[in-house]
This record gives sequence, C-alpha cells and structure tokens, in this order.
Amino acid sequence: MPLFKSKESKQSETKFEFPEPPKISPRQRVMRFFNTPRIVGRMSVVGEKESKGPVGKYFQKCETDDKMGEKTFERAEIRMLDTAVRGAVRDARKEIDDIDVMVSGDLLNQMTTSSYTARDIGVPHIGIYGACSTMTEGLMMSAVLVDGGYYENVVCAASSHFATAERQFRYPLEYGCQRPPYAQWTVTGAAASVVSTNTKDNRRFPKIVMAIPGLITDFGINDLNNMGAAMAPAAMDTMFALLTQTGYDSDDFDLIVTGDLGKLGSDILRHLMDKRGLKLGQNYIDCGNIIYDVDQKCYQGGSGCACSATIFNSFIMDKLMNGEYKRIAYLATGALMSTQSCYQGETIPCISHAVVVESPFNGE
Amino acid sequence: MPLFKSKESKQSETKFEFPEPPKISPRQRVMRFFNTPRIVGRMSVVGEKESKGPVGKYFQKCETDDKMGEKTFERAEIRMLDTAVRGAVRDARKEIDDIDVMVSGDLLNQMTTSSYTARDIGVPHIGIYGACSTMTEGLMMSAVLVDGGYYENVVCAASSHFATAERQFRYPLEYGCQRPPYAQWTVTGAAASVVSTNTKDNRRFPKIVMAIPGLITDFGINDLNNMGAAMAPAAMDTMFALLTQTGYDSDDFDLIVTGDLGKLGSDILRHLMDKRGLKLGQNYIDCGNIIYDVDQKCYQGGSGCACSATIFNSFIMDKLMNGEYKRIAYLATGALMSTQSCYQGETIPCISHAVVVESPFNGE
Repeated sequence: MPLFKSKESKQSETKFEFPEPPKISPRQRVMRFFNTPRIVGRMSVVGEKESKGPVGKYFQKCETDDKMGEKTFERAEIRMLDTAVRGAVRDARKEIDDIDVMVSGDLLNQMTTSSYTARDIGVPHIGIYGACSTMTEGLMMSAVLVDGGYYENVVCAASSHFATAERQFRYPLEYGCQRPPYAQWTVTGAAASVVSTNTKDNRRFPKIVMAIPGLITDFGINDLNNMGAAMAPAAMDTMFALLTQTGYDSDDFDLIVTGDLGKLGSDILRHLMDKRGLKLGQNYIDCGNIIYDVDQKCYQGGSGCACSATIFNSFIMDKLMNGEYKRIAYLATGALMSTQSCYQGETIPCISHAVVVESPFNGE
Repeated sequence: MPLFKSKESKQSETKFEFPEPPKISPRQRVMRFFNTPRIVGRMSVVGEKESKGPVGKYFQKCETDDKMGEKTFERAEIRMLDTAVRGAVRDARKEIDDIDVMVSGDLLNQMTTSSYTARDIGVPHIGIYGACSTMTEGLMMSAVLVDGGYYENVVCAASSHFATAERQFRYPLEYGCQRPPYAQWTVTGAAASVVSTNTKDNRRFPKIVMAIPGLITDFGINDLNNMGAAMAPAAMDTMFALLTQTGYDSDDFDLIVTGDLGKLGSDILRHLMDKRGLKLGQNYIDCGNIIYDVDQKCYQGGSGCACSATIFNSFIMDKLMNGEYKRIAYLATGALMSTQSCYQGETIPCISHAVVVESPFNGE
C-alpha cells in the first residue's frame, strides 16, 4: 500500500474527526400544551466558581463554601437543592403546602439528592432520571401534569455538585487526578422552577408551549471524560425534530440553547446540523460553553444537571420575563452511562429532551 | 430507677417493636383519568426461581439461565427488559414504530438497564426513578401522557436482577455473604405494559382510573437488608390517601396489592393501617409475600422493581381481563437510599405510588 494512502487512513482515525450524522428518527413526537402552563417562580443556587463566570451576576444565590457547613459534599448538594426548591416556591409567592407534586432528579446513584430533599420538603415526589437533561425532562413532565389538568402547582428541580460527581464518576478529589483537555467541569449548583396553571394572575409569566422527549442516541464514544462528543448526536436528533416537526425555523427562536455540550460538543453539533442542511446561527449557544470564563481552567466548559438548569432559571428566564427573548428552545443533554457499564465495555448512550418557552409578551 | 422500669424501656428498643404510625399528609393528591387509558398489552419475563414459585405458571416467559448467554448479569438484565418491552408491544398487536414513548426505570446506578434497552429499541425515552415503585410510577406517568391526549401508545417497563442488585447494594454473589433472616430476595425479572387511548377496539382491556404519587416517608431505618420495615410507612401513607380521598373503602377493591414489603413489611403495614382505623382484610396481599414458596429460602420474600411488575402484568392482569377482579389498587413501594448515603449514616427514605385499575367488565 502506498505511503500516502496509509497516512490518509491513519488521519481518518483521529479522535475528533467529525463522523457522519446518525440516522434521524422520523417519529412525530412533539407534545403541544394548549392550556398554557406558566413558569411562575424559579431559583438558581451556585457555587463560588460559577458565580465568578460570565453569567455569575444573574444567579440568585451563591454558596462560597463547597461543603456549605455540612459534613459531606453529598449533604451540601441536598442543602443546595432544598434552597433552590424553597426559593422557587417563595419566588412564586406560594407556600410549600400549595405545591401538589415535586418532579426532580440528579446525577447521584439512586438519585439520593432528590429523594432526601423531597423527604425533607414533604411534597409528593415523582423521580425522573435524564442525567444532565433532567431540567428539561422536569419542565416537560411538570407542563404535562399542569396542562393536562391534573395539578395546579408543580415544582421541578435538578442539582449537581463537582465534588460528588467526580467522586462517583471519575476519581475522588483527594486523589488529585489530572484531567484531559477535552474534559468538562461539573457545575456545583441547583435550580428549581414552579409550573402553574394559566390563571389571570399568572399571565405575566413565561409559558411552556411544547416539549419533545429525547431519543437515546449512541455514537460509540466510551471515554467518561468526553461527554460533549457523546451527547452532540442526541442534541442533533431532538433539534432536528424541533426544526422539522413544529413548524418553526431556527430564526423563529431568539435563543436555541443546549445544556452542557461544552466547546467541543457544540462545535460537533453545529457540524452535524450543517450536514443535515439546518445551519445554526448566532442565536445558538451552549450553557456549558458560557458558564465559565476561559481563564477559569475548565477546559471544554461546564457540565452536570445544574449547568443549564441554573442558567435557564436565572439569565434566560430574566430575559423571557422582560420580553427581550420572545421564544426560546431549551435542549438539555444527558449522558446515561454508569461507571459500571463503562468498565464492562459499553459505550455512552445519550439523550436530549427539549422544551419551547415563550415570553408573556409573545401573543395573548 | 426500679428494675422493672429499666427492663421495660429496654424492651421498647427492640428492633421490631411496632412504632407509632407516622404523620399523614393531608394533601389532596389523587389524579383521575376521565379519558380511560387502557392497558392493551403486557409481558412478564422471570428467572428460574420465580417461575417455580406459587404464581410461576402465570408468567409469560421464564429464563432458565441467570446470565441468558450474556457475558455479564447486567447485560442479561438488559436482555430481559428488551424481551418484556417487545413482548408487551407484540401482545398489544402493535409494532415498535406505533409506540410514541417509553417510560421506564430500574435499580441500577444511572438506570443503565433502561437506557441501554431504550437505545436498542429506538423509542423516545422518559426515564423515571422510584426504586421498586417504578412500575406504578410508570403506569401513572403513562396514563397521564395518554389521558392528557399527548400520545396514543406508551409503553412502561421495569426490571431487576438478583445478581446485579446484590453486587450493587450489598455484596457480589462471589463473596458468599450470609443473609440475615429479615432479608428479602431481589426478583430476577422484567415486565412491561402498553397503555393506549380508549378506542373502540381497546374497550375490552383494563383501564387505569386513578393514580396517587407517593410522599417520601422515612421511619429512621438504616439497615440495607431490612427493606420491608423501611417501606411499610410509605405504603401506609399512600394507602391512607387512597382510602380517604377517592371515595373508596377497602371493600370496594377485589385486591389491594403492595409491591415488595415481604412478610415482615406487610405485617407492619397491617398494623399501621389498623392504628389508623382502616383494617385491611383478606383482599390485601403483598407481591413480595407470594412470589416465592417458603421452602425456596427467601426469608421475608421477594423485592425489586420486577417483583410486583411481573405479578401485575401476569397474574393480576389475567384476572382483570377475565373479570374475576373488578377493581384493584396497586401500590408498589420503593426504598430510595444508595449505598453511599447509608455509609454516610443516612436513613432510608421510601415512597409508594398507587394506581387503581378496573376490569373492562366494570361499568361501560
């Protein structure tokens, strides 16, 4: 075989060569909410590092101590989620007793953060798991419960913590392991939204108009540090459904925001959408990409349930409330592997659920 | 202090002393389904031990090899869940492409069984976590999605495997650890139900008429082997809501069935309900209590998502289909701790979601 040929074929094995876009699911899967569920309260709590990033000033609360005075990082995460849920309920000018049900999830094994928080708060609980896509899954299921007329007030929430996620998925911080350049940084934070019926009082709040549950997509990536590349195809699949099944073009959104693809992952997503003939413009951003400054040494950016959950419930909701954004699409992405499945040689399956939220100044 | 006083107070610390019933949540939390979602297909797959138990003959499929020809127990669990989902869809005389969304969960960290199965099946996925209460949480959310008019066909599923659960929550089987007499045996199995809209063709199938999401209840138990005692108060809380908020007495049900409290747990539940003035009669059974024979050496009985999921989708659905049961209440129970949370000294929070299912011969 000639030398050039061989060199070429070696190049094509390079790790970050953009692969062919995966098969698209033709299934019609958009849920439309005609009874206009509203997001009437919200709160984001973050750690110190996040509060110093580019969108830091928008977060409602910053915890300067990673353990928040608790004995373990896990207890600290529970405390953050508790603060976010109670804060969102207060922001909605409601009491905990007004909340019919709580829909939440997190990254920890058996979702202990959510369960312990829901136990302490004392509201019926529906546990969901979508890894870092939890916030959109929560908003979607809350919208379904309210829009369908089953409940009046539902709170949905998600959390993650850098130290608990590193301990569980990679190495405990004490080990001092080096991180590869394509790694992301799990956001320490928690966020919650209160979704309520469309009463007269609630008309001044943003409304959830549709949602798309994600299809699990697997690109064959099995590197636990390279979440962005693993999740991009899942975001593409849901985004493709969004732009072909809802009647909206990408220009119809003031913002299309993905969860935590990071720099590398969002580049891959742009490329994949390009190949499908749906070019993403300046209105596309990724939360993982904007939560940290370059000089904060987080390599490809933020990740974790809280990454997009905290940005949605602060920065994005602020701009929906004041009408700067008329309509946004929020697609959080989640990687659904466990350490066990990766040790056993499995690849990383990923998912992306989407919700479309409109400003109260859009229509009626 | 006199000797007798001291002896008395020592007695009151005995492990299985029945405690005071916990506070009951007064919240109105029943969801009613007026558009009559129907369970039009189902399948249960179990392991060999389960197929030899008292209800063994009702299960649709039995796997005699615990690894089912796969390299790992985890892969075997994925294969079982895959079989159950595809079987339920076939039983509903539908194709996979007819299914709008899959709602499922399991016990493994990050719910890998569900995610890998949903990836292979290729249906949009909504991941739920309720530990062993997953099947009722799945039926509840599926009923919401169908009843609310968002989808026509939803499949919900749950699975567990003795070997994967032991490895994760207690000790790997190879370790040969002794089990205490109050332990339960995780059921190896998987089950799925297809929930569909109330079309003319579907009128001959059982209907889901209401559901109650569970409140997380914690009795202060922290022994990972004693799930029944931990879960009984959660079952009591939901059962109390069922019998005080729906207009039904316990006599209105041909069967009230809990998930996997086992012998000890269901005795505690009877006691707790008694103290609340709501005596449970002969129509109350516990799936964990009936899945194994006494001579199968499973101590307090079965546990795991699959315990009640497989019994509901075989034995109970059979009797609903033929009209022997007119109305049943199914309350699966889940223990929401992780090994990490227990090592850190946390107690076990538990939950119980309920669904009420009626025979097609009941009314219309």
